[in-house]
Amino acid sequence: MKNNKMQVALLGLGTVGTGVYKVLKRQKNEMVQKLGVEIELAKILVRNVEKAKEKVEDPSIITTNWKEILEDDTIDIIVEVMGGIEPARTYILEALRKGKNIVTANKDLIAVDGRILMDTAKENQRDFLYEAAVAGGIPIISPLKQSLYANCIEEVIGIVNGTTNFILTKMAEENMEFEDALKLATELGYAEADPTADIEGLDAARKVAILASIAFNSRVTFQDVYIEGITHITARDIRYAREMGCEIKLLGVARNREEGIEVSVHPMLIDSRHPLASVNDSFNAVFIRGDAVGDAMFYGRGAGELPTASAIVGDIFNVAQNIIMNCTGRIHCTCYKSLPIRKMDDIVSRFFMRMYVDDRPGVLASVTSVFGNNNVSIEQFIQKRKSGDLAELVVITEDVLEHDFNDSLRILKTMSMIKEISSVIRVY
Amino acid sequence: MKNNKMQVALLGLGTVGTGVYKVLKRQKNEMVQKLGVEIELAKILVRNVEKAKEKVEDPSIITTNWKEILEDDTIDIIVEVMGGIEPARTYILEALRKGKNIVTANKDLIAVDGRILMDTAKENQRDFLYEAAVAGGIPIISPLKQSLYANCIEEVIGIVNGTTNFILTKMAEENMEFEDALKLATELGYAEADPTADIEGLDAARKVAILASIAFNSRVTFQDVYIEGITHITARDIRYAREMGCEIKLLGVARNREEGIEVSVHPMLIDSRHPLASVNDSFNAVFIRGDAVGDAMFYGRGAGELPTASAIVGDIFNVAQNIIMNCTGRIHCTCYKSLPIRKMDDIVSRFFMRMYVDDRPGVLASVTSVFGNNNVSIEQFIQKRKSGDLAELVVITEDVLEHDFNDSLRILKTMSMIKEISSVIRVY
Repeated sequence: MKNNKMQVALLGLGTVGTGVYKVLKRQKNEMVQKLGVEIELAKILVRNVEKAKEKVEDPSIITTNWKEILEDDTIDIIVEVMGGIEPARTYILEALRKGKNIVTANKDLIAVDGRILMDTAKENQRDFLYEAAVAGGIPIISPLKQSLYANCIEEVIGIVNGTTNFILTKMAEENMEFEDALKLATELGYAEADPTADIEGLDAARKVAILASIAFNSRVTFQDVYIEGITHITARDIRYAREMGCEIKLLGVARNREEGIEVSVHPMLIDSRHPLASVNDSFNAVFIRGDAVGDAMFYGRGAGELPTASAIVGDIFNVAQNIIMNCTGRIHCTCYKSLPIRKMDDIVSRFFMRMYVDDRPGVLASVTSVFGNNNVSIEQFIQKRKSGDLAELVVITEDVLEHDFNDSLRILKTMSMIKEISSVIRVY
Repeated sequence: MKNNKMQVALLGLGTVGTGVYKVLKRQKNEMVQKLGVEIELAKILVRNVEKAKEKVEDPSIITTNWKEILEDDTIDIIVEVMGGIEPARTYILEALRKGKNIVTANKDLIAVDGRILMDTAKENQRDFLYEAAVAGGIPIISPLKQSLYANCIEEVIGIVNGTTNFILTKMAEENMEFEDALKLATELGYAEADPTADIEGLDAARKVAILASIAFNSRVTFQDVYIEGITHITARDIRYAREMGCEIKLLGVARNREEGIEVSVHPMLIDSRHPLASVNDSFNAVFIRGDAVGDAMFYGRGAGELPTASAIVGDIFNVAQNIIMNCTGRIHCTCYKSLPIRKMDDIVSRFFMRMYVDDRPGVLASVTSVFGNNNVSIEQFIQKRKSGDLAELVVITEDVLEHDFNDSLRILKTMSMIKEISSVIRVY
């Protein structure tokens, strides 16, 4: 505090940092009534001072010197929006140990090092809030830790990456191929110059690790998540999915089973009537199932300057209330269990599989016997069309062990009558 | 506290009370890890002891004597799930003044007397939480007061009554008429013996008053809400709506305009692509628009024993954490403004209108001139079919003043060429 104003330092002034700056400014008059105190942005840590100075009214708050912030005892709250592991990790730990409260959107860091960050916050009885780290502006972390806290959460399924959801929506609605939809996403600013983290599912995996940790009260890290991206999805897959009454979405799926936690990110066919199926464009949604609440879904903007800033400034207000009430650290790490993570091989899934085979008698029998010998039950077997000597087959399995399905796949790939296995996509 | 256990008293053991009893029991082992303390259900206040004793393991906790609870200083949290205005109001006020914290699901009471309840909680620095009062298990009040608190909320639209949503879904999907769908809802337990509060929109109006108060930081009461129920909606209206790419839903609509707050509950045509349009059966959803977060939606079970108990026990846990951290009253009434409520006459709406007119030349011209003379612009004029000497007309207006539209309606009703005005439904 300084002159009766709560002092905040912002680390980073990129898209999200700029959003935080704007929202704090918009709320300048409201916040006094909301909190009984004004929040002042006292310092902004940046690398490039000149670029940063153009973005703010009072350039004197810009600094490149972390120590200047760390050692300023009037600063109560540090908002870390630099992203990446280092130096964010060091700064946050140093700040917590100095008794400062942290608000961050850093999913990369939390998905890997969540435990030490939250333990350090707890030791120092300070707040460590990160609503913006998952699904941007959508309140999901706080509801799981508060309003839904009396539930045993059985399942969390999320569309938590806007870039891939935009791409899949365009592919579905305009019959575009992946590369074209990605190009459009890049042009419109939905995809970054290097889109790897989005299209390969890494970004979604970080978010689902964080969600699973909170939902199941047991630490799940990025390394625990099985990951498949959407680069192999074709417009034809989506068309066939729609014929079967399904959409294809990149889903983060986490389940709390008796045998342990299942956690994965991959494209899936999902029934068009499921609430997640109509979450389109760059929107995100998180669907949960709890033993008391039943099904619930949270929908909104998962990224962007202002939606992400909405969550961050919400967290800042929350910390401010805790400081005023002298109860920082009120909600800390909720991972009080140590549940095992299940191997993907041991998980039960349904599969959609599309392949080209020789169009001659006996082929179907051979294919089905491979599945049969490996405990893979088939729900549907559809011959889609013929072209020349080849027939296109679509197979939908029943619930089967991933292990058994992969065994079948390995054998099918060696068979000369099978010319191409074009797609293998899980079915929700 | 007593023997290191936090003591809770439950007022009422109907559907919701029984749910709270069950969820607290389910969470018995979890809660110690979640909160660091056990929560004990110390007393249950009922009217009929014999009936209540059958529902609980330890009948000694049942009482009919409020004073026994009020004067027991070991009881920290009172959970009021009796419903209705009195004696709930008196009990809550007495309990707050005695320094007890309150969790309630009582929308009837809050929508009328919210201010005095929350002021009394604040004076006594105690918690007054009511997540379950709106949209059952769906976290919406706490997100609005915390994660979304850095927004100026512009609009809240909710499907907040499961009974009417179930009825409208059945009418749409199975082409049922209102009376038949209501009968089915009653048989399945979705509608109460006296369904008035649901089908006339009163229940939804209470919830939207509470939502609007929180969203706009200004007290809105039940009396402020313009209310229309769904009893006049026909299967034909829904069929025509669908032909136009819309669903009909009972929507609670609250908007924060420069001129004041608009708040109403009525059936509306809503575009099928809107996320609210696919909220079916007895599910609820609340859609909000904020200046930072943009569009967001919260979806789930709006009623029922366990979903409602999910929200209530979530609140109990929340209070327990506040008691432990010595910060009860951390979040209190957020109505720090006094915005005017706009008269319905001054609001701008779009209308769908269906009528039977004489099938002869000049009728259309007469009808359109009535609209024209009253500043009502027509977007679509559709002649649906003829039967005998009558033609069925559907009119969709542009955005028009309710006042102007009602003037037109009054005149049309006097015209002999107009045989029947069958439906007037607003369009979102």
